[in-house]
Amino acid sequence: MKYAFGVDVGGTSVKMGLVSEEGELLDKWEIPTRVEDAGKNVLPDIAISIKEKILEKGISAADVCGTGIGLPGPVDDEGVIRKAVNLHWDRVFNVAEELSGLLDGMKVRAGNDANVAALGEYWRGAGKDFGDMVMVTLGTGVGGGIIHHGKIYAGVTGAGGEIGHLCINPEETIKCNCQNSGCLEQYASATGIVRLLKEELAASDEDSEMRHTDISAKNMWEAVKHGDALSIRVAEKFGYYLGLGLSIIAGVVNPEVFVLGGGVSMSGDVILPFIEKNFTEHAFHACRDAKILRATLGNDAGVMGAAKLVID
Amino acid sequence: MKYAFGVDVGGTSVKMGLVSEEGELLDKWEIPTRVEDAGKNVLPDIAISIKEKILEKGISAADVCGTGIGLPGPVDDEGVIRKAVNLHWDRVFNVAEELSGLLDGMKVRAGNDANVAALGEYWRGAGKDFGDMVMVTLGTGVGGGIIHHGKIYAGVTGAGGEIGHLCINPEETIKCNCQNSGCLEQYASATGIVRLLKEELAASDEDSEMRHTDISAKNMWEAVKHGDALSIRVAEKFGYYLGLGLSIIAGVVNPEVFVLGGGVSMSGDVILPFIEKNFTEHAFHACRDAKILRATLGNDAGVMGAAKLVID
Repeated sequence: MKYAFGVDVGGTSVKMGLVSEEGELLDKWEIPTRVEDAGKNVLPDIAISIKEKILEKGISAADVCGTGIGLPGPVDDEGVIRKAVNLHWDRVFNVAEELSGLLDGMKVRAGNDANVAALGEYWRGAGKDFGDMVMVTLGTGVGGGIIHHGKIYAGVTGAGGEIGHLCINPEETIKCNCQNSGCLEQYASATGIVRLLKEELAASDEDSEMRHTDISAKNMWEAVKHGDALSIRVAEKFGYYLGLGLSIIAGVVNPEVFVLGGGVSMSGDVILPFIEKNFTEHAFHACRDAKILRATLGNDAGVMGAAKLVID
Repeated sequence: MKYAFGVDVGGTSVKMGLVSEEGELLDKWEIPTRVEDAGKNVLPDIAISIKEKILEKGISAADVCGTGIGLPGPVDDEGVIRKAVNLHWDRVFNVAEELSGLLDGMKVRAGNDANVAALGEYWRGAGKDFGDMVMVTLGTGVGGGIIHHGKIYAGVTGAGGEIGHLCINPEETIKCNCQNSGCLEQYASATGIVRLLKEELAASDEDSEMRHTDISAKNMWEAVKHGDALSIRVAEKFGYYLGLGLSIIAGVVNPEVFVLGGGVSMSGDVILPFIEKNFTEHAFHACRDAKILRATLGNDAGVMGAAKLVID
């Protein structure tokens, strides 16, 4: 059997996995992300952990295809990262080459974490029976990744599929974290949903389940399931902007399927009709048949996609 | 020397070219598009014309790489066309295979005409010094094509890069030809500019050069050069929607360059600042460095890109 290591680097912990060539996640573990000293220990810590795992499992070097790594920042096709604020990295360098050096020349490929998670869902998750795919991650922010002919579409600066900052509402006056206004992320992220909820709650005295619980995206979707009118109005705003956004993305890259991941997608199929209705209304007819599905790999998508980077 | 034939099929005429492997357009000619009888003569007429040219030039079969063909309709990666209203074709079939059969098994590749023109501009035109490119054709309508790693990005139904129908203004009440509202084409095409001009002229009695000449996109850009206030306001609307649209496209596919073609682009560099200002304002920082250039091949882009389909 041939093996690959998949590494998904976050600001707090690094998720790691040993994956078979056929796509079975044989083992997974985590190590802390040591961001002190400009994050200089992050890659060495990963290399040590991989070497330990090889010893522990008694794997022969000849049976390792390589290591794939997903990183929180834009990574181009060559493996060059420009910036990774969460890792305290402030230099432009080739992550793939550097990690390969620490692993005695092992084959290493690097990608942006959202793109790599998209590849994971395409390979072994919700996208596995489809052709071109766009993954949209609805978490604290909104990220995404495009898979074209089975490969990540990174774009020239590694920002391909970074759809959270598409300007979807030019009339918006509130600023996004990116300093623009009207970004998809301002409506379709968990943070965006909380903002919309607070606006709706402040606008009237209408009773709502949301006045008696923590204001969170998760609780809102529960309230939607119970028929809470105020929550349904917020869900409709969410669905309007996300459906419109997906229709625009479909008009650019014409995928066969959209896969929705991240925390918001965990609330279940209740989210889908709100999105689909608006997608269908705004999409150009030739792009309108794209399916919209929820991700199935959860937190393993990043590790699986990273491993796939080195499995042909 | 090796040769390829490039064929650009329109509703009235078929443009054809003999192109060297190095990208020199050695000869070009046209034949009429015979759309009668459900367009059954279109491909046979093309095959006959290519065979005649081979005889005329005394080219040996071994020196022909093949024939590429651009068509007015969605064409997928395999060469299957779904619909070509302008050619009166109403069947789904593999154009590449059928034309190859008529050319005694010659290698044939087919693509959508806007995508193929994009490939031409990428190969020998404004995009030749760049990586990933998006071409935007501003003509009677708005079309486009995405070039990724030197290849056309067709999408699953061949509608990739069909950006004329991105919904860029959900507030619009006037319907587009596609039956949606707020499409980029309603503002950024020559037709859209005329519509905006008529609206502006009807809204007041303000004097304008446009009250003393034919109302056309071409004349409007001339008036803009002369400082005509009303025309400048329309140019600003055009630039607002097109700049916003390009910023969204940049956020999805993160190209290195946009190339603007079609009739509107022929009005010169006067159009660029109106677009650039709005592009920069709305684009996500990681995608903001994309250049915006005008196409340089004019009507030859389709023939050149078609030839490139069969030149590796």
